[in-house]
Formats: sequence, structure tokens, C-alpha cells
Amino acid sequence: MSRLEITAPDGAPEVEPGDDLVAIVLLMASLADGDVLVVTSKVVSKAEGRLRTGTREEALPGETARVVARRGETMIVRNHLGLTMAAAGIDNSNVPQGQIVLLPEDPDASARGLRDGLLDRTGVNVGVVVSDTAGRAWREGQTDIAIGAAGIVVAEDFAGRRDGYGNELAVTLPAVADELAGAAELATGKLGGRPFAVVRGRADLVLPRGEHGRGAAALVRPDGADLFGYGAREAVVRALRAEVADQRPFGAPASPTELSAAVRDVVGLVPSHTGAADGALLVTCPRGLMRALTALTFAHGWMVHTTDHPNEVRLRPSSG
Amino acid sequence: MSRLEITAPDGAPEVEPGDDLVAIVLLMASLADGDVLVVTSKVVSKAEGRLRTGTREEALPGETARVVARRGETMIVRNHLGLTMAAAGIDNSNVPQGQIVLLPEDPDASARGLRDGLLDRTGVNVGVVVSDTAGRAWREGQTDIAIGAAGIVVAEDFAGRRDGYGNELAVTLPAVADELAGAAELATGKLGGRPFAVVRGRADLVLPRGEHGRGAAALVRPDGADLFGYGAREAVVRALRAEVADQRPFGAPASPTELSAAVRDVVGLVPSHTGAADGALLVTCPRGLMRALTALTFAHGWMVHTTDHPNEVRLRPSSG
Repeated sequence: MSRLEITAPDGAPEVEPGDDLVAIVLLMASLADGDVLVVTSKVVSKAEGRLRTGTREEALPGETARVVARRGETMIVRNHLGLTMAAAGIDNSNVPQGQIVLLPEDPDASARGLRDGLLDRTGVNVGVVVSDTAGRAWREGQTDIAIGAAGIVVAEDFAGRRDGYGNELAVTLPAVADELAGAAELATGKLGGRPFAVVRGRADLVLPRGEHGRGAAALVRPDGADLFGYGAREAVVRALRAEVADQRPFGAPASPTELSAAVRDVVGLVPSHTGAADGALLVTCPRGLMRALTALTFAHGWMVHTTDHPNEVRLRPSSG
Repeated sequence: MSRLEITAPDGAPEVEPGDDLVAIVLLMASLADGDVLVVTSKVVSKAEGRLRTGTREEALPGETARVVARRGETMIVRNHLGLTMAAAGIDNSNVPQGQIVLLPEDPDASARGLRDGLLDRTGVNVGVVVSDTAGRAWREGQTDIAIGAAGIVVAEDFAGRRDGYGNELAVTLPAVADELAGAAELATGKLGGRPFAVVRGRADLVLPRGEHGRGAAALVRPDGADLFGYGAREAVVRALRAEVADQRPFGAPASPTELSAAVRDVVGLVPSHTGAADGALLVTCPRGLMRALTALTFAHGWMVHTTDHPNEVRLRPSSG
């Protein structure tokens, strides 16, 4: 039997900038070796003085690395931590009216600070997760995810492991830090007053003293490696711009065969293979289709290069 | 103090088509009113005879409603349940070699069957979640989500609720059924042998006897309402096709002002407002830009209509 227990103490004091979170945690929770402490980013931010006067809209530009999708009032951005969130994760709940709270500047560092503090003062070896609430593609509602972590395995790597039938496991990377954050949210809730939860029963995920692990940053898919790094509308706008200064791709470049098929299918032109090592293709393209060809080529992680012949262009993978 | 307990019993028997899952659950788990039983879809599928001989690739076309993104060997599709998953959720782990398992045909119905069966035989009122493992946009790794549910609140609706400071809550819909599935995965694991978990401590989420609730289908964002319903590359290909037979939009139509700004910005043309009630715009478009304008218009949820003037087109919202 596998057994987990999640407890979230009531009655946490109001946290102010500069407060000693380690002391507050020790006051409220009883911790044992192998526990995972899940702390909402809200309370970490408050202790770290990340409250600001103003609105989410005013704070958004400073928190935004790039816009992912925009629709009416909704702005989904990738923030400086690499997190894709509505309004960059800036929140205005459970803070005084007229104020907002920014995410911790480095939530993995915040988690390390808590882990080290707890270890120094009590000798107890706990993993720490800093959680925040995020929407998802494809599904309604939000779940809590790990935006910071220290001293825990954030994803269990089963690559190459086999099940009882001898099959290699198809799902190889359960993101357990996110599941811990979501499980903790079931105990802490959204109405304030329970910013901490302790998960007991997965001591196997907690790293030895002195090891912090890869942190929650390891759960962020690198920009340019994501197939959903732009909203569908934004992807089209981006590809159709005559010059895309920002070379961040929509995932890895397509194979020459894939691009060739797309060019035939979408703009009705037939590329020829040059035999070059980088897979370069040649296309004769009427002027009227040049923008569409360029957009299509860009979307496949390739670039259009001019040649000496006015209507002939060479297509090459962007990395080439 | 809020307290949750999650237990996953070891040593479940191998489930065969036609097996009585209710009896197996009762044999393994001790249930109380207000518990949530989380069952992996795998074991539900096995009991429902959803095993097939063959490979995931062979079964994929039958399970696919439409392709969302494709990259090399990876195929992310929306399946007939509306779930966006790699390989449509077809799995080949924890099944005999050479076989695959399809998702339950109607996981909400499977969940209702379990809930009703447990109620009938023991009088116990439990919520039921059928879980499966899914990748996410933007984040590495996978988490378990709820693909079926009965007798539980799948998302807590806090719309209009206020925090202790009087702020309206910005995050209004915690997807608790997904968090329950993820929490259960921490206890059941991926190596087989623990297909059931019981979550105790959120009886407030369990509905009264006789009520099944909206089911996990309520967590599926409707097709055409999702900003990430297509991979970035696929969105470009789709918009650039001269004729898009499939009118499924990339979210709600843009406002006339938004589309007008995009047309100016991307193709350098200046639309004029017609004053029509549907916000229709007129654009004079050289032939060479027509395909780009059409793609851009489509991406904004609008359509291009010809007029009596050869180079003039009228743009109208698709719904209009």
C-alpha cells in the first residue's frame, strides 16, 4: 500500500516584506525528514517584498518576455522565468486592494533558501516546492504547478524502464513536482489563510542533504522547442510578416521531405532537391506567391534565400 | 487544518475483459462516504474490453478526430473525447506485448457505472475519477488528468467570490478533478499493480447520492474556442491553404479594429470601415498579396468575400 498525507495548517499570520518564512513555517507545521513542503508563491513573494502599487495591466510589460497569445482582455505571455501564464502570473488576490504581487524573482532560489533554512535550524531534510496557479491549453480551469523547487526530483525519469509485461514505458517523465503542487492546492484552497502544505509519503523524491536538484526550471520547455509557443492566430501573423527579426522557431526544423510536401500541398509549387548536405531545396516562385512561400518556409523552421535567378529561391533549414 | 489522505492498495489482480471492477475495488479498498476513488483509465479499458492487437500507429486513425500537431514521430491529436494527447491516448504499457489499449469509449459513463455500482452494493457515496496521463503545452513531462468523473465537482467555481481583502478572485476555476488525478498518481505510480487510489478529505467535492454532476467532459475546452487548438506550424499551413473547408476557428473572431490593425501591420494595406452592423471592412488588395490577406483574415476568425471590383474584397466575421 502506498500512502500519502497532505496537511495544510490554518491561521497563518499575514506575511510582510522581510518576514522570516522559515520561522513562520516552523511555527505552523511539524516537519519530518522526507516531507515535501509546498508553499504558495504568494506568500514567498510577500516575504520577498514583491508587492507593488498599481494594476496588473501596468505591471505586465515589465514581467513579459514575449506575448504568446492575446484575445480581447486576455493576454497570455511567457515571462522572464519561461512560464507561460495569463498576465505573466501577476496576481491581485489575497493582497491589499490597489496592490498587486509579482512572482518571486527566482523561485528556485526561494525554494533553496527555505530548504537550507529549515535544515540549518532544525536538521530536518525536506523538499520544497513553490507553487502557483496556471491555466492550460486545451482544458478549462486552472491547476497549481511548481514554479520553484529544491531538494526534490521534479520529474521521475522512467526512460528505458519496463513494465511487468516487458514493454518499455511509453510515458517516461511524470512531472511529480507539478502533481505535488496540485495535490497541495486541494488542501490549501484559494480563499487565503492556508499558504503552506506538507506532503508526507514520497520521501523517495526528496534528495539527500546538500543536494538541491535541477529545480522547477527543469520543467519549463525551452523557448523555440515548443510546438505551442504561439497562439494559432499569433503564429500566422508572425509567419506572414515579411521579415521575422525574431528567429525563435516553432520547434525543430522540418525535414526536406516534409517541407517539400507542404510547399506542394499549400502553394502548389514543386521544389527540387539540390543534393546539398543541409537538404536545401530550390523553388521557382511567382512574385504573387512569394509571401505565402516565405511564411510557410518560416513555419517549418527554414529560411528563404534569394539566388541569381529572379524567380528562383533556395530554401535552407534555419540552423544550417 | 485541512487534511487529505491518499491510499493506493498494492496487489490488484490482473483485470480481464468483462471483469467486475466494482467487485475488485471493494475487494481492495475500504471506502467511506465522501471519498473520491481514482481509477486509472487503463484498468477501466481492460475491463471494458478495449484491448486490441497491433501498434499505436495502426490504431491512431480510428481514434483521431483531427491532428493538432505533428513533428517527426510525434503526433498530437484531438481524439473523439475532445482530449488533446500524444497518439490520441492510445497506450502500450502495462498490457501484453503486441497489444495496445484504447481509452474507454465514454469515461464519464464508466465513472458513473462505478459510482452507481458501489452505491448499489454497499450504500457508500463516493465520487469517481477515471485518470489518464497527458503531456502539456509549455512544460516538460506529463501529469495525470481526469478524463472521466461522476459524483464530484470537477472545477470549483469561485467567480465573484472575494478574498479577505475584498478583492474579487482572479483565478476562478480550480480544476480539482485534474488535481485529484495528479495527486492519485503520486500514490499509484507508473509501474503497474496499483490502479486504484482513494482520496479522503475533500468530501465537500462529492455530490449527493443520485447526482452525477457534469463529468470530466466539462473540463474539455470546446474545439474552436481554444487559442492553442493547432500547433504553430499547423496553424500557418491551415491559414495559408487557399480554401479552408474546415471552418473551425482559432478562438473567437477578432474585433474589426484588431483585424484592421493586423492587416496594416502585416500586409501593409489599409482597410476601410463600411459602417455595416457586422463590422465589415473593405480592402483594395493587389493580386500578389491576396493569399497572405486571406490567411491573415482566416486567422482572425473572418472570411474574405469578393466584390464587383476585381481588386477589392470585403472582410466579414465568420459567424456573420
